[in-house]
Amino acid sequence: MERIPILQMGDLLLVTIQVDMHDQLALALQDDLSERIQRTSARGVLIDISALDIVDSFIGRMISTISSMGRIMDAATVVVGMQPAVAITLVELGLTLDGVRTALNVERGMQLLRQSHNAEAP
Amino acid sequence: MERIPILQMGDLLLVTIQVDMHDQLALALQDDLSERIQRTSARGVLIDISALDIVDSFIGRMISTISSMGRIMDAATVVVGMQPAVAITLVELGLTLDGVRTALNVERGMQLLRQSHNAEAP
Repeated sequence: MERIPILQMGDLLLVTIQVDMHDQLALALQDDLSERIQRTSARGVLIDISALDIVDSFIGRMISTISSMGRIMDAATVVVGMQPAVAITLVELGLTLDGVRTALNVERGMQLLRQSHNAEAP
Repeated sequence: MERIPILQMGDLLLVTIQVDMHDQLALALQDDLSERIQRTSARGVLIDISALDIVDSFIGRMISTISSMGRIMDAATVVVGMQPAVAITLVELGLTLDGVRTALNVERGMQLLRQSHNAEAP
């Protein structure tokens, strides 16, 4: 179980982070995600962090990297399911998830991605 | 992180199992799932096991229990993402997932649930 599964739903990819992230796992996730975006022509990536009680600068940086990487490959990233306590801590620590969009839950995240996708369509 | 997150998508619930299950975690998941089915009026539960390299009798029993529990609450359960090696081992061990439906991946699982739901409609 040394890899985080990536689920495909239409042209969206969904990743649920449940375990403590460490360097190798974060790198593997970035590799797997970029490979899957390319292979499936995904337009969006949803990262669910509802299981995380703590988001530190390491996780924050990983999410920013995934988001930047996705953007280059034309896939938007939305972080969903953030716990209230995590949001409070992020603000208190001054950790801004630069360029990362967030939504309350998976459903709203999917809506957000669909809207932005439609808005971009000619 | 002592609970497995349950994601809602429309009238479906999605659970991705990524960590080693133990008694407490399995019980917590069953409790959480039944509570969520009731609260959200979900019609289906998708259990993704693509991250599992091994499905032993404990996991098998947990999945059967969740499926039976869901059925009583009028929510169908579909197990998705089973690795080929896991399928082979299940057959070799004679572990049948009684009354549990399976699908290759999340998308097909969602299709299956939608079809069965429509078929039941008057």
